[in-house]
Amino acid sequence: MDVKILEIKQSVFANNNKQAEEMRATLKDSGIYLLNVMSSPGAGKTTTLVKTIEALKKQWKIGVMEADIDSDVDARTIMDTGVKTIQLHTGGMCHLDAEMTRQGLDGLGLCDVDLVFLENVGNLVCPAEFDTGAVKSVAILSVPEGDDKPLKYPLMFQVCDVVLINKMDVLPYFDFDLDRCIANIKMRNPKATVISICAKSGEGMKEWVDWLDHEVSAWKAQS
Amino acid sequence: MDVKILEIKQSVFANNNKQAEEMRATLKDSGIYLLNVMSSPGAGKTTTLVKTIEALKKQWKIGVMEADIDSDVDARTIMDTGVKTIQLHTGGMCHLDAEMTRQGLDGLGLCDVDLVFLENVGNLVCPAEFDTGAVKSVAILSVPEGDDKPLKYPLMFQVCDVVLINKMDVLPYFDFDLDRCIANIKMRNPKATVISICAKSGEGMKEWVDWLDHEVSAWKAQS
Repeated sequence: MDVKILEIKQSVFANNNKQAEEMRATLKDSGIYLLNVMSSPGAGKTTTLVKTIEALKKQWKIGVMEADIDSDVDARTIMDTGVKTIQLHTGGMCHLDAEMTRQGLDGLGLCDVDLVFLENVGNLVCPAEFDTGAVKSVAILSVPEGDDKPLKYPLMFQVCDVVLINKMDVLPYFDFDLDRCIANIKMRNPKATVISICAKSGEGMKEWVDWLDHEVSAWKAQS
Repeated sequence: MDVKILEIKQSVFANNNKQAEEMRATLKDSGIYLLNVMSSPGAGKTTTLVKTIEALKKQWKIGVMEADIDSDVDARTIMDTGVKTIQLHTGGMCHLDAEMTRQGLDGLGLCDVDLVFLENVGNLVCPAEFDTGAVKSVAILSVPEGDDKPLKYPLMFQVCDVVLINKMDVLPYFDFDLDRCIANIKMRNPKATVISICAKSGEGMKEWVDWLDHEVSAWKAQS
């Protein structure tokens, strides 16, 4: 089966925050939980999503929007899980805002979904500046990137609700101090939930999946 | 010794390409080779620079501009090599353009330097869109990021002259196909010079350092 590819248009709305609030209100009315997933290129967004989908797809009806500047490699990987998937091409844009996310949701179709993942463009800077209208945001930081990233890219760690520290399996091969990393994250965002995982091996994934499962239940109970 | 930190102002010039061409003409007149170093966060820009500086600092007088949104951790690391170093803070900006680079060069001071490195903001998207006025650009892609990055971030691999594939020491622990990665880079940019390195262990660094040494010599011979 071919991947559905949607070429996203640049937004014309000046007030992104208003668009984002309206989106969240609509999602609440519909009982749909949208999660914005952000990270550097190659931190493991897609692998983490595949494992999260496998753990939750019996519980919730899931949809995925894969945003990339080009290619459909991630959407193909996600499609193998059997959930509804769409590839968003940003036409060179380095992030998604609320209006671009809305175009994606329209393309995906919101009938019959409880939980939608937005895999944002791999970029630790720009996506943090734009509220996508998602209910919550998660940032993935992988061990090979280094424990100092919250010092250099403050906004990403300030705006996210959860930080997943991924690729814990390769910790022995890198100069990465987990305690220092968590302290750096907490300095930027004391309220952030921090979970160490290895999406590949499954380490730590239960805590993360439980967090998300609880979130979706709570959101749907309010709607 | 404290790190000199310069808060960069946003550019007011509409025509970045013109500013960049003027910068290159000035650099040529002065016999100064400016290299723009780009990559994702954590791909190893700073470690690669430290090793490159150590190999070339007897030959050439070197200066370094470290661009980050926040912190001065990289500038401190570079300062230990003993070369002239300045930390540029971009005030949240995700890239540097030619005018911002000029502000950095003014802050660094161009007396008595042959080779200046600009360590751009860690970002595989936006820095590729702006000509900094550098003589050449290098992109560093590290093994943990994956061999598919040239498919997803086309512009970065189109605009650079050299791609360094870094962290070759951890190849056994990642699903990374070196031949496929090189083919993906060449698809975007057939003329790119591709060199596999491990900045930490020194593997492949001689080929890279020789390339750069030859570049600086040729540039100075023309000036």
